[in-house]
Amino acid sequence: MRTEGRHILMDVSGCNPEILNNLELLKKILKEAAEYANATVLDVAFHHFTPQGVSGVVVISESHLSIHTWPEYGYAALDFYTCGDADPKTACEYVAEKLSATHIQTTEIERGIEKNERYTQEIVGKRVKEDGEKLLVLP
Amino acid sequence: MRTEGRHILMDVSGCNPEILNNLELLKKILKEAAEYANATVLDVAFHHFTPQGVSGVVVISESHLSIHTWPEYGYAALDFYTCGDADPKTACEYVAEKLSATHIQTTEIERGIEKNERYTQEIVGKRVKEDGEKLLVLP
Repeated sequence: MRTEGRHILMDVSGCNPEILNNLELLKKILKEAAEYANATVLDVAFHHFTPQGVSGVVVISESHLSIHTWPEYGYAALDFYTCGDADPKTACEYVAEKLSATHIQTTEIERGIEKNERYTQEIVGKRVKEDGEKLLVLP
Repeated sequence: MRTEGRHILMDVSGCNPEILNNLELLKKILKEAAEYANATVLDVAFHHFTPQGVSGVVVISESHLSIHTWPEYGYAALDFYTCGDADPKTACEYVAEKLSATHIQTTEIERGIEKNERYTQEIVGKRVKEDGEKLLVLP
C-alpha cells in the first residue's frame, strides 16, 4: 500500500450549536462525509460530554475523520486524513455545510512522502472561507 | 470549556515492522501515551489490515490520538490532538521510542484560537529528529 496521504485540519465557527451538540446527527454527518469522499467506514467511536460537546472519530480504510465540538462557542475542530483515491476536501466541504459554518479555516498537509527511505510531511496549503465566499487559497 | 488545543502531526520511520503490525501492542502503547500526557481515555477503535498494517484511534476527554502504520516500510503516521493541560509532545516522544523510530518529523498546530468570535488555527512549529539526536526545532 502506498504511504502518501492528505491530511486536512479544519476549524469551523459560526456553526449551529444544536447540531454541534447532537451526537447521533454528527455521527451520521461524518459517516456520510466519508462516503462522499469515497472512503470505506470501518469503525466509529463517539462520546458526548457533560454539559455539552461531542468528540467523535470515524476510522476509514483510508485513515480517519475526527470532530470535536464546542456548542457554546459555535465552534468545531476537525481533521480528515485520507490515503489513496479518497478526497478529504469533499468531506470537509460537506461537513462545514451541514454544520452551517460561516467561517472555515483549513491547513492541508501531505503525509508519508518518501525521501531516501525516510517518510516526511509537508504543508501544502492553507485556506479560509467567509460566509458566502468561495474557499480561498491563502498565500 | 476552553477551545484552545495543540495538535501534533508526527511521521516516524525506521520503525520496528513487527511492532507496527501488532494491533494489541499498538493499542497498549497509545493508551499508555495518553496516560503519560495526563489525558483520560474514553474509547478506542483499532483495525488490522490484510496483509498488514494497523489503523487506530484513542478518543480522550482532551481530544484524540491516532496511528496508521505501514510495516512494510517501517513507517507510521500519527496525530495527537489535546486540549487543556494534556501534553501531546510527551505522548509523541513516548510512542516514537516504543516504535524504535530512527527518524521523526512533526508539525505542531495551535487550534481554536479566538479572534473576533472566529476560531482559527496556526502552525507553531516543525521539528525533526534523526537517530541519536535530540528533537530539533526547524526554522
